[in-house]
Amino acid sequence: VRLKQITILGVGLLGGSIGLGVRAALPKCKIVGWGHRIESLKKAELVGAIDRFDTDAAAAVEGSDLTILCTPVGTFRGLLREIAPSLDKGILTDVGSTKRSIVAAAKDILGDKAKFVASHPIAGSEKRGVEFARADLFQGAICIVTPTRQTPPAAVKFVESFWKLLGMRIMRLDAEKHDRLLADMSHLPHVVAAALVAMQEDAALELCGTGFLDATRIAGGDGGLWKDILLDNAGNLRDSVARLHEQISRVLKMLNEKREGELVDWLSAAAQRRAKLVERKLRQEK
Amino acid sequence: VRLKQITILGVGLLGGSIGLGVRAALPKCKIVGWGHRIESLKKAELVGAIDRFDTDAAAAVEGSDLTILCTPVGTFRGLLREIAPSLDKGILTDVGSTKRSIVAAAKDILGDKAKFVASHPIAGSEKRGVEFARADLFQGAICIVTPTRQTPPAAVKFVESFWKLLGMRIMRLDAEKHDRLLADMSHLPHVVAAALVAMQEDAALELCGTGFLDATRIAGGDGGLWKDILLDNAGNLRDSVARLHEQISRVLKMLNEKREGELVDWLSAAAQRRAKLVERKLRQEK
Repeated sequence: VRLKQITILGVGLLGGSIGLGVRAALPKCKIVGWGHRIESLKKAELVGAIDRFDTDAAAAVEGSDLTILCTPVGTFRGLLREIAPSLDKGILTDVGSTKRSIVAAAKDILGDKAKFVASHPIAGSEKRGVEFARADLFQGAICIVTPTRQTPPAAVKFVESFWKLLGMRIMRLDAEKHDRLLADMSHLPHVVAAALVAMQEDAALELCGTGFLDATRIAGGDGGLWKDILLDNAGNLRDSVARLHEQISRVLKMLNEKREGELVDWLSAAAQRRAKLVERKLRQEK
Repeated sequence: VRLKQITILGVGLLGGSIGLGVRAALPKCKIVGWGHRIESLKKAELVGAIDRFDTDAAAAVEGSDLTILCTPVGTFRGLLREIAPSLDKGILTDVGSTKRSIVAAAKDILGDKAKFVASHPIAGSEKRGVEFARADLFQGAICIVTPTRQTPPAAVKFVESFWKLLGMRIMRLDAEKHDRLLADMSHLPHVVAAALVAMQEDAALELCGTGFLDATRIAGGDGGLWKDILLDNAGNLRDSVARLHEQISRVLKMLNEKREGELVDWLSAAAQRRAKLVERKLRQEK
């Protein structure tokens, strides 16, 4: 990837990590930051995630070969409107956890031929802010790219090369399928983890072991960010909830009818399926 | 605690870790093991978790100051019948994840005056077998002890001292409350984690990140062990499921009605509540 300058809109954990990763991989590339809070921008500059910042989004993207939207998904439409006039020849991508809405917004605002390639790097943590940014955050993780039929192939290749530069493995999906699978794999688990925390009596929390802490780690994520994601993918989430309830109801039924063998099989199948996931993960990280 | 000899019934992860912990704290104490599989017993001997083993449970407990039931909760009633005649003056405890049934079984089989003190050390992992046993497994963790009005106070003190010897912090609860709180804090999260794995399409598993792996780690536990726990606590589990559904339904309603502020508040409250748990955990481990 030839990159003279990139712009990162939103320099939190993800935006900051992109900056640090680009700095490590392409030391000569200029990195421009934009954000709402001047303090975060200064911190990002201090840790070396950006070279300079601009508090005007349109000005920040000017002259950049690549602009990356790293703000909460609920802000995308407004930001696209702001930066549209200055995008010029630069390519645009994002790191949003939902993809249908940003693909639609880009089509509405930038038009069919815009060099926008929607991305979702599956990396991060429940932590928030540039102080937790790491150059290797994306290393070995998957980045889903969801081009449409109208997306210029050269732009897709460009964006994919960019994520590979940060160590990511690319997977292409259409935006519909992305949002459906992520509802199951990420958005539902988040809601469930938060609900597991919310439903506990205080007395139960006294007994909390590492199992519960691990199971609910994702619930530590920022409420504002997740509100946007859940609202944006509410329809799929509703289906995911229904399918989870169905599984849990099966278990209750097995318990009711004391179908012990079936219950062991169901529990063991889940354990084995997860063990395979862990194995594959370890293989991929080698 | 003065202990010349203890007997561990079931030398898996927990039983083996008790053996290693006792060995470290009281090098002179003899440790007798019992189990169904001769291979596991030999392994336990090899790693130093037990000094010798007996394949006859009644013989294994003879002459021990303390006997600890470390087999799946579904086996407790049968084992109690086997060992009752040989318990003599020794004190009996267990490590089961449910407490009402073992308390009732001990009353039925051993009688009111038996020196049985029900325990639940909240430690372990999704791993299984003596090969994962660690002398420090219990260090800093909580052990719930659920004596009844009939339990001899000296026996309660004795068993509590034993767990403290392994580094545990003691909490007393009645068995009813234990089972209710643990349904919320442990048994429900297990079912939910397994259900989250079970409901995924294969395509979704391709996108699995560390968040999902952490959230479902507990689902890696042994199906047979967990079948016993869930069956034994099915009534409480049903209530826990209902309360989880209630929380999730609230979220879906907020999404439906686009009550954004309320949704952020709910998500943030869960994140903060969990952050406090983590803080307390870190303080306790210091």
